Amino acid sequence: MTAGSIAAYIDEARLWSRHVEMAKIGATPAGGVHRLAFTPEDTLSRRLLLGWADARGFQSQIDDLGNIFIRRAGIDADAAPVISGSHIDTQPKGGRFDGIYGILAAFEVLEAMDDAGVKTRRPVEAVVWSAEESGRFDIGCLGSQAFVDPSKLPAIFEKRDGDGTSVRDAVAAMKRGLPKLGQRAFRSPVAYCVEAHIEQGPELEAQGKTIGVVTAIQGQRFFKIEVVGEAGHAGNTPERLRKDAVTATIPIIAGLRKLFHDPADIVRFTIGRIDVVPNAMAVIPGYVMFTIDFRHPDEATLTRLGGQIETVAREHAGPCDVKVTEIRRSKTTYFEGVVPETILAATERLGYSYMHMPSGAGHDCRYLAEMCPTGMIFIPCWKGISHNEAEDATPADVAAGARVLAETLVSLANR
Amino acid sequence: MTAGSIAAYIDEARLWSRHVEMAKIGATPAGGVHRLAFTPEDTLSRRLLLGWADARGFQSQIDDLGNIFIRRAGIDADAAPVISGSHIDTQPKGGRFDGIYGILAAFEVLEAMDDAGVKTRRPVEAVVWSAEESGRFDIGCLGSQAFVDPSKLPAIFEKRDGDGTSVRDAVAAMKRGLPKLGQRAFRSPVAYCVEAHIEQGPELEAQGKTIGVVTAIQGQRFFKIEVVGEAGHAGNTPERLRKDAVTATIPIIAGLRKLFHDPADIVRFTIGRIDVVPNAMAVIPGYVMFTIDFRHPDEATLTRLGGQIETVAREHAGPCDVKVTEIRRSKTTYFEGVVPETILAATERLGYSYMHMPSGAGHDCRYLAEMCPTGMIFIPCWKGISHNEAEDATPADVAAGARVLAETLVSLANR
Repeated sequence: MTAGSIAAYIDEARLWSRHVEMAKIGATPAGGVHRLAFTPEDTLSRRLLLGWADARGFQSQIDDLGNIFIRRAGIDADAAPVISGSHIDTQPKGGRFDGIYGILAAFEVLEAMDDAGVKTRRPVEAVVWSAEESGRFDIGCLGSQAFVDPSKLPAIFEKRDGDGTSVRDAVAAMKRGLPKLGQRAFRSPVAYCVEAHIEQGPELEAQGKTIGVVTAIQGQRFFKIEVVGEAGHAGNTPERLRKDAVTATIPIIAGLRKLFHDPADIVRFTIGRIDVVPNAMAVIPGYVMFTIDFRHPDEATLTRLGGQIETVAREHAGPCDVKVTEIRRSKTTYFEGVVPETILAATERLGYSYMHMPSGAGHDCRYLAEMCPTGMIFIPCWKGISHNEAEDATPADVAAGARVLAETLVSLANR
Repeated sequence: MTAGSIAAYIDEARLWSRHVEMAKIGATPAGGVHRLAFTPEDTLSRRLLLGWADARGFQSQIDDLGNIFIRRAGIDADAAPVISGSHIDTQPKGGRFDGIYGILAAFEVLEAMDDAGVKTRRPVEAVVWSAEESGRFDIGCLGSQAFVDPSKLPAIFEKRDGDGTSVRDAVAAMKRGLPKLGQRAFRSPVAYCVEAHIEQGPELEAQGKTIGVVTAIQGQRFFKIEVVGEAGHAGNTPERLRKDAVTATIPIIAGLRKLFHDPADIVRFTIGRIDVVPNAMAVIPGYVMFTIDFRHPDEATLTRLGGQIETVAREHAGPCDVKVTEIRRSKTTYFEGVVPETILAATERLGYSYMHMPSGAGHDCRYLAEMCPTGMIFIPCWKGISHNEAEDATPADVAAGARVLAETLVSLANR
């Protein structure tokens, strides 16, 4: 089969209808999806996918963290596979495309290859990475982290959700709801890894481009800031004697926002969580915890700005004490070499408009890049809105990304 | 018996030991008390008190909201009683004196009168007012409100706590844990009402005074401010396209703090509660709700500043929408006439240092003042700290307040 021809077998209507079917599982009244990792909704979505794989006669395997690999066999039985996938779980009240698109696009490629009768040297696999979102267990990419570095497994298994359920128990519960699958070993060989994903940002739409050839995943630093004051009665304590943790938090955040202000608008600085204690209307707050999610593609900027958080927080804390804890840090991951080059060539061959761009969000490919050549394909999403029930993408863009992915996977599978 | 002599029968050690015993029920590791309204802890504390009353042969009655009246009979069986009491419930992780002091001081007076063999024309009653704190059902003074205005009962019964339990069911559950008591009618006649309480503020300690003769309960206005933005992905959305509800909330609160800043330090302005949605580290917050607790002894100031909240909030909201709702308003209650005059005379007779002062906090006497002459006695508390596990008072001050209360109640009971 000649280069460019597999894309013709991508069935836009079939791919879209599968998004519609998947979006029914965990559907929210506002049109989003609430499908947390390893919950019955996650399990049901996997069963639906495995049913489609069965109908095609594709073999599926599962590993100890519940990552699922759906294989279309290659000619060379010993060749390492080209894998492509994403996650099936969502943030609380998330959208219909974040994650699931990368799985359905990869599965669409397997079906298109079948329909075209194409044979490749390497197997091609559609992958479901478990628990990419941090919504349930506070940290994300659990499946891809364990697959790439099995030494992390014991710690991951011990992580617990807000109700005290461990990852170990959550995975076991999910597996009981799935058909029996072959066992896949962590870190089993992978030749190449490609992930298709909605951009989750506004740039492709703003620039009028269809395809983003992803150059990197920007680095992230997460901090927890604790402001410790003294609880007291709201009716009696005069201002001069208060150690009000909320009162101290306001100038601290204002000072931090000034520090992180970036006229070029590349810095991503978010205070996503604020917990006030005791959080009662008539009680002066004695304690506030808030989080900082800081991302930037440049490591030096991550180091410089992140290093000033504690100083700025202390400067503005008034009579309260401040404690700054870095929860975790991820360096910038660069996608270079054969995978992004293959994506670019496929995009140009198919005639789609495109741009090179870094990813603002973390993805499973951050970890896969540690063990094999890796790359990502972005498609536009409406207004850049993601992690939100209003998340949206067009059938045409969804199909365009799948066509680029098809060309890319077939090319890589023949290398 | 001559004026001034009943005070000699107040037993400081007995009164203190009863505080110690009561503080064991709902005791927290940090030395506070967690005894929410109508919970088993509340019920146990009432049983302990009723046991002491039984041992003295005092008759006790209970009304439909669980308010308990422990009576020491007077000579004139038809005379309306002088009542004195406070609340047994605490805020979440509250202190050992807020509320319970006023009950134990009143009960100590009944015992002192018994020990002294004093006879009064009117009955004197120690009262437990139900659910004064707003910690469980969001609004407070449920018992005194229902007693004074029974038309409020249906609405109060329907109020629910965070778990969905109604006041009606909570009262019923508590009553099942209490011995059978005589029935008291709401709004049964009361001649005078006096409440002893810790100041819950720092002024008495700061001025070196033992007794506060309370002149008023300052007015309060409670507001809920909602800031509505748009949730989004923390890694991708550039600052210029965000509608971050936390980012908008910071200058709103800063603007409000400027508006409410009072060089004389009489304004009480507290933001005690902040709820962020979805409150996840990697999600731009789409919604923030915060509360304002605003108190001032001057009605005109309450009206003027409260009326500017919405304008200031809108001015600083940036791309977000703002909704301001007044949850409730209480006018300033003035204590004037025979009750504060009797308190003052008793204090002077006993030679305690004192000052006149308004109460910053609301109390059950706010409502009792609507049906009978009413007044309050304050004693110092450590650093003015209240609604806090560190709340503290000295045995000497506790006894001093009870002595003033004893003189006051006996005087009023002979009027």
